[in-house]
Amino acid sequence: MLGLMQDWPLLVSKVLDHAATYHGDQEIVSRTTEGPVERCTYKELHSRARRVAKRLEAQGIKKGDVVATMAWNNARHMEAWYGIMGMGAVCHTLNPRLFPEQLVYIMNHAEDQLLFVETTFVPLIEAVADKLQTVKGVVIMTDAAHMPDTKIENAICYEDWLAEADDDYTWPQFDENTAAGLCYTSGTTGNPKGVLYSHKSNVIHGMLANAADTLGLTSGEVILPVVPMFHANAWAIAFAAPMAGAKLVMPGPKMDGESIYELLDGEKVTATAAVPTVWLMLLGFLEENNLELPHLNQVVIGGSACPPSMIETFEKKYGVEVFHAWGMTEMSPIGTLGRLKGKHAGIPWDEKLSLKAKQGRPPFTVEVKITDDEGNELPRDGKAFGHLLVRGPAISKSYMKGEGGEILDDDGWFDTGDVATLDPDGYMQITDRAKDVIKSGGEWISSIDLENLAVGHPDVAEAAVIGIEHPKWDERPLLIIVRKEGTEVSKEDILSFMDGKIAKWWMPDDVAFVKEIPHNATGKILKTALRETFKDYVLPTA
Amino acid sequence: MLGLMQDWPLLVSKVLDHAATYHGDQEIVSRTTEGPVERCTYKELHSRARRVAKRLEAQGIKKGDVVATMAWNNARHMEAWYGIMGMGAVCHTLNPRLFPEQLVYIMNHAEDQLLFVETTFVPLIEAVADKLQTVKGVVIMTDAAHMPDTKIENAICYEDWLAEADDDYTWPQFDENTAAGLCYTSGTTGNPKGVLYSHKSNVIHGMLANAADTLGLTSGEVILPVVPMFHANAWAIAFAAPMAGAKLVMPGPKMDGESIYELLDGEKVTATAAVPTVWLMLLGFLEENNLELPHLNQVVIGGSACPPSMIETFEKKYGVEVFHAWGMTEMSPIGTLGRLKGKHAGIPWDEKLSLKAKQGRPPFTVEVKITDDEGNELPRDGKAFGHLLVRGPAISKSYMKGEGGEILDDDGWFDTGDVATLDPDGYMQITDRAKDVIKSGGEWISSIDLENLAVGHPDVAEAAVIGIEHPKWDERPLLIIVRKEGTEVSKEDILSFMDGKIAKWWMPDDVAFVKEIPHNATGKILKTALRETFKDYVLPTA
Repeated sequence: MLGLMQDWPLLVSKVLDHAATYHGDQEIVSRTTEGPVERCTYKELHSRARRVAKRLEAQGIKKGDVVATMAWNNARHMEAWYGIMGMGAVCHTLNPRLFPEQLVYIMNHAEDQLLFVETTFVPLIEAVADKLQTVKGVVIMTDAAHMPDTKIENAICYEDWLAEADDDYTWPQFDENTAAGLCYTSGTTGNPKGVLYSHKSNVIHGMLANAADTLGLTSGEVILPVVPMFHANAWAIAFAAPMAGAKLVMPGPKMDGESIYELLDGEKVTATAAVPTVWLMLLGFLEENNLELPHLNQVVIGGSACPPSMIETFEKKYGVEVFHAWGMTEMSPIGTLGRLKGKHAGIPWDEKLSLKAKQGRPPFTVEVKITDDEGNELPRDGKAFGHLLVRGPAISKSYMKGEGGEILDDDGWFDTGDVATLDPDGYMQITDRAKDVIKSGGEWISSIDLENLAVGHPDVAEAAVIGIEHPKWDERPLLIIVRKEGTEVSKEDILSFMDGKIAKWWMPDDVAFVKEIPHNATGKILKTALRETFKDYVLPTA
Repeated sequence: MLGLMQDWPLLVSKVLDHAATYHGDQEIVSRTTEGPVERCTYKELHSRARRVAKRLEAQGIKKGDVVATMAWNNARHMEAWYGIMGMGAVCHTLNPRLFPEQLVYIMNHAEDQLLFVETTFVPLIEAVADKLQTVKGVVIMTDAAHMPDTKIENAICYEDWLAEADDDYTWPQFDENTAAGLCYTSGTTGNPKGVLYSHKSNVIHGMLANAADTLGLTSGEVILPVVPMFHANAWAIAFAAPMAGAKLVMPGPKMDGESIYELLDGEKVTATAAVPTVWLMLLGFLEENNLELPHLNQVVIGGSACPPSMIETFEKKYGVEVFHAWGMTEMSPIGTLGRLKGKHAGIPWDEKLSLKAKQGRPPFTVEVKITDDEGNELPRDGKAFGHLLVRGPAISKSYMKGEGGEILDDDGWFDTGDVATLDPDGYMQITDRAKDVIKSGGEWISSIDLENLAVGHPDVAEAAVIGIEHPKWDERPLLIIVRKEGTEVSKEDILSFMDGKIAKWWMPDDVAFVKEIPHNATGKILKTALRETFKDYVLPTA
């Protein structure tokens, strides 16, 4: 027997309808690519998004077609985003930091039909334009006054293009499982793989983000997503903010400390979200200029692990609560968020900080578990660490066009590739990437723990740990160090610094000094390259 | 093209799984029907709910079977609720305040197979047992020590029944649109009609309830739902609390001021929800005993309009924020909730109170609009009032077995039967029931506004307004008054009290004095009965 409730498909167009109808006068403030800070309302955004949809249809774009954007966080990107998805096309957000060859690969793989691109990235597109096999038109996201001189064929000025459509347009209604958004992961191995979000997954994910114990946006919130819309839906904020009627403050192309501070202060921002690098720049700027953050209440930090010292600075010095978060493109992306529980009220600061340094706990609709190599579930005791597996309605079941094959196990779990602990309260802590874990005599050693410890040495600029083949133990850790300029720290110095802070059998068997450690496009250490470099290395213990 | 996200059906069993896994030690505190206050955890509740499911299967209950409960808010009701729904049966919550003949009607109409009943209601069931055509067994919700002597055939003691199953049980997975819950509306006309919730609608509704701008429950919240689980899912709290890992405090059979105060204070309750009558009793008790509410932060008031004086008392005297809410059984039930917006920070108290006296604004997934008699949408200007229509994924599309026929219009809107205004910020205010509006010369007069004004007279105990046929104006208002004991207020006194406070043409054409005004089972004025009584009444103006 089926229930008798309305067939009201969970479409992303309804998110913007809601914002326009019940929060029509709420503002979206954007630092434009052209320079000035501009503002519009949800009502205006709603009107322009429907014009985009109508204009796309006039262009011949059909339901299921893929339309790409290479754009900053601003109102124009938001209206294009909702216009594309709302009319039933798929919004493919491109990360401009990808290498040109990766960009060409994903645009051809996704079969992008049309491209919206900021003036900033016109040179990037010019350089690859002749390799794009499916793109039929390029819309430059600016007005006539700022239209660059470009050799891209079929390039049109966005505002001229949009002027050809009015907003007399009704969103089509269709199956909520229809594809809405596409975002390629920047894997360290193999080709990038496309994550294809559905309308339903985006709406459910927006709702879980707005749960009071997750991001918890309200109509009183002023939220600044520094995290880009091309990073998995700006961590849900592109949906969660209009859903709640929150004021949106969009940073555009400028993510330096001064620019972010100017918006935080000028727009009285109450909540913000970004990767640690952005906050390092902001904290530096605040420090240098002796500034405060009187309006800001919460900052969400994810993308890579947040150092406890950063949490402490925000909370103790600036009175801003930090929520450490973890997720993946494949998870829409929120996996866990570090809000404390009622039972933690009044615990000492040190305990609070240890808890906040973990990546947090999953909101409802995200399931997590850890397993050993054989797939046996490991205890949630905060000590055992194992493969982190996830399940939920906003988590990938496969990649675009089946790349990478089957990615779920028989029970529907997706292996994140991370290794983590889970404590009895559900707080998760990433200890490593599975492929970076060092397997020594059947036991696991976390490369990240060793790296974090090594960079604590005052003369170490950067550290990486990889496993090196060992005749007796299968693998043993090699610590690779970039010295700080002008220092001469030795292997013995570093090992004695680490001694006593970890189990004896975790101690690296050797230390290698290098000039630099290779990174991928998003700033992560490229361990594949390190393993290649050190593939013939022989440990002194071997 | 469909998205590539996981098929993770939104089943209510997953709500309890989440609570048990990530908030296993969180408490459910119940005032038991036997007397003492008892406590258990979500982990224990999860175990017992799976035992219920396993035991139901052993009993021969199958997916799609209807299992009824007539129970108070307590842990046993929660575990039965999740056990029934989780195994795929339909949990039919019975309102014990229904008249016996209505109870027999709905139990036969729903084809209830099994009944869980509190000892409190055993006499009620004994009186109708021989008229129940489908019920094959009755489980008395108590332990052996408290098992009453009953003449109900096949009556079993709950704890003995449950002892026959262990918790080695895995929830079945099935279509999220499967029926989960059933609740009959107590209409003032015709037979009660069954609202059939699905798993998906319950989950979506729980998620909208937990949005930070709706109920916004967190794991730090201690929530006391005085509103019964048989009143449309305890206003979502039966799902929203475990979803958030909130501590649940269940009042059992005692809803008097002293009993509620004892739980509010003893369990440090932070949030609670009930109809105005309950709060009148509590406020009276607090006043008499000179007590405070130091832990309570928010109270949600709905079910019938909350007098502004009650909002003022809670907020000014006790420092408790009031959220006025409105909904319907057909809406799961949340329709609107009166949280203020960011823009309202700092408005004067009088304006705040006027806004809070409205029923609030819809959360995302609830759509509202107002129309005239011809179905034309009326402006959202806070002045125009018209038929209130709603749409959303947790709103009925039809009643059990098609009773009442088609209930949606061509665009999928459900007519609530209420008449309301909508202001530009989305705040809704009920002005009347559509069938009670007085249609005078093509214009509408709100019977509720006149009643609210009349009861403001110090000598008036209760007031009702109905439309009486009029040769010139079609209908004109008749004010029906119950005088306070010992007073002799006259027609002229009352009309002159009202004069100047409403438009001249809204003034009642006559006042009739009666000893009492009839009410239905849930305490609402039975205007059908009044219209019958006064059907031959001739107005002095006619």
